[in-house]
Amino acid sequence: MKPTDLAFDTVRAVLWDGTSLKLLDQRRLPRETVYLDIPDVGAAADAIREMVVRGAPAIGITAAYGVVLAARRLPADTPDWLDALTPDLERLAASRPTAVNLFWALARMKSVIGQVGADLPARLEAEARRIHEDDLADNRRMGELGAALMDPAEAVLTHCNTGSLATGGYGTALGVIRSAYGQQRIKKVYADETRPWLQGARLTAWELVQDGIPVDLICEGAAASLMRSGRVGWVVVGADRIAANGDTANKIGTYALAVLARHHGVRFMVVAPTSTIDMDTPDGAGIPIEERPVSEVLGLAGQPVAAEGAGAWNPAFDVTPAELIDAIVTEKGVVERPDRAKMTALMK
Amino acid sequence: MKPTDLAFDTVRAVLWDGTSLKLLDQRRLPRETVYLDIPDVGAAADAIREMVVRGAPAIGITAAYGVVLAARRLPADTPDWLDALTPDLERLAASRPTAVNLFWALARMKSVIGQVGADLPARLEAEARRIHEDDLADNRRMGELGAALMDPAEAVLTHCNTGSLATGGYGTALGVIRSAYGQQRIKKVYADETRPWLQGARLTAWELVQDGIPVDLICEGAAASLMRSGRVGWVVVGADRIAANGDTANKIGTYALAVLARHHGVRFMVVAPTSTIDMDTPDGAGIPIEERPVSEVLGLAGQPVAAEGAGAWNPAFDVTPAELIDAIVTEKGVVERPDRAKMTALMK
Repeated sequence: MKPTDLAFDTVRAVLWDGTSLKLLDQRRLPRETVYLDIPDVGAAADAIREMVVRGAPAIGITAAYGVVLAARRLPADTPDWLDALTPDLERLAASRPTAVNLFWALARMKSVIGQVGADLPARLEAEARRIHEDDLADNRRMGELGAALMDPAEAVLTHCNTGSLATGGYGTALGVIRSAYGQQRIKKVYADETRPWLQGARLTAWELVQDGIPVDLICEGAAASLMRSGRVGWVVVGADRIAANGDTANKIGTYALAVLARHHGVRFMVVAPTSTIDMDTPDGAGIPIEERPVSEVLGLAGQPVAAEGAGAWNPAFDVTPAELIDAIVTEKGVVERPDRAKMTALMK
Repeated sequence: MKPTDLAFDTVRAVLWDGTSLKLLDQRRLPRETVYLDIPDVGAAADAIREMVVRGAPAIGITAAYGVVLAARRLPADTPDWLDALTPDLERLAASRPTAVNLFWALARMKSVIGQVGADLPARLEAEARRIHEDDLADNRRMGELGAALMDPAEAVLTHCNTGSLATGGYGTALGVIRSAYGQQRIKKVYADETRPWLQGARLTAWELVQDGIPVDLICEGAAASLMRSGRVGWVVVGADRIAANGDTANKIGTYALAVLARHHGVRFMVVAPTSTIDMDTPDGAGIPIEERPVSEVLGLAGQPVAAEGAGAWNPAFDVTPAELIDAIVTEKGVVERPDRAKMTALMK
């Protein structure tokens, strides 16, 4: 790992010191930086459900440590560990029903429970640490691979939060941006504020400020003018799910950026671990898009903004067709101009 | 005027009963519907500056009535009306320095002051009423012309507020939408919430709810998915300034809609009176774009949202190139696929 990789990476959402779990309370950002003690599995499930922690990889890591905390509370001579831990596994699984990484992490922990061996709590802790460390290592690897694609440019544009706050550290799209900034390939970052939840304004801007990377927020409506100005070489985003042909579901607003990027000759990069790739879904049409409550659009910070009687349409995600994506960057390698054959080759 | 034109048109921002001026306080919408009494020219200038009234045509009309109020306070035998009224004209002109219609309306009032004749206050009132009534008539005419371009579709998408609240009544883009809804060419309206000021959420949704026209708000980031869904036949927007070749400056976010519309085969209409067309500016590159304070993006409702240390880029307008515009609708007629020759022919 080159020294530049280690710079600009001071933020951690999930802390584990071998004994206790601490979570950065992301609901209070950027006003306060407060880590909550998570003493037991119930508190871990609550923290996921109440969005103390968010971002699919960070949720999976939290759930894994939650299983460790649950196992440590049981007697060392517990006769049937799986039986004893099942209520806790179910509780964690129910904490956020749509997060794929949550189920993936719980499946890994469950597989350890099913293995023969001494000191299950220690083996579970080792597995949780591995999930956490692998995520960080994968993000650093993706950072290297993604940054290597970038010719020097003034800036990149990103959307939502895909950083240390959403992962075990470093981030996916924001990891590429950290690497690119560390290698002086870019001078600054433009971040969509990302309505309706404002993850860009509340989280991405905070995270970049912590690491001393210059960031300018824009409203989504300004992205087209920004691209036209020539200041942005790449749009770099994360992914919630990638279909077998490369079609990519991500936070609402991503697809617009891909269309605008193509129109302006700006390149478009998706950064996501292969655990995000779903080869069982042939294309984007098969990805279900969650529609969120209209109140998120009709109000701000809990206060109504729009007139009573107005409706809203509030899809949480959109699908960017593979043909608008210049590169999908994973920990296993880069797929340029993705299609089904290239995605299949990557996943072999 | 056909009966359908008169439907769906109950909102007025500027009221004049021959004696007194009342302005709907748009800062309080949609929470409260309160008309403020504007007893004198000073109150009129204050109301413009403090954004009680906004929208270029509505500002111009308010300023015209402000001149009437000023003249009525002067003795009937005032020897030099222009000299006596100049401080008031200057006060009104300084109330919002970038609104083109403001200067245009004041120039019309000043021209009446310069004419010979009895009872200047009465002649000024007649001119102010004419400005107001012409604006409404022009908007109804544009409504007819624009709606006639629309094949039946489920919906249209609009941006910012271009309605009765922004004009003497009926609206420009929203006037076309009123006509199209009245003629049952569309079943509903999608409105961009229009960050950072949320004119779509606060004003357009309110106005359409008052008139019983179904409206769904979307965040700007959802516009691409909406167009892809096939529900929208046209994007219909207003204009702040149109250059001689048809390039159109309008509220930030408009240009993105034009690019997205072209990509999805959705048509794109600009609706604006010819007073918005500036034949002295050859193309969009010559239109100055105001950059607004970064605090509008870094905060919400006066509260900081983004981390201290984050920057922002906050252009208030963008320029849509003429080649992305399918039709410019004015009170003098429609220009399809605008270019310099067609715009020149329109303005002859």
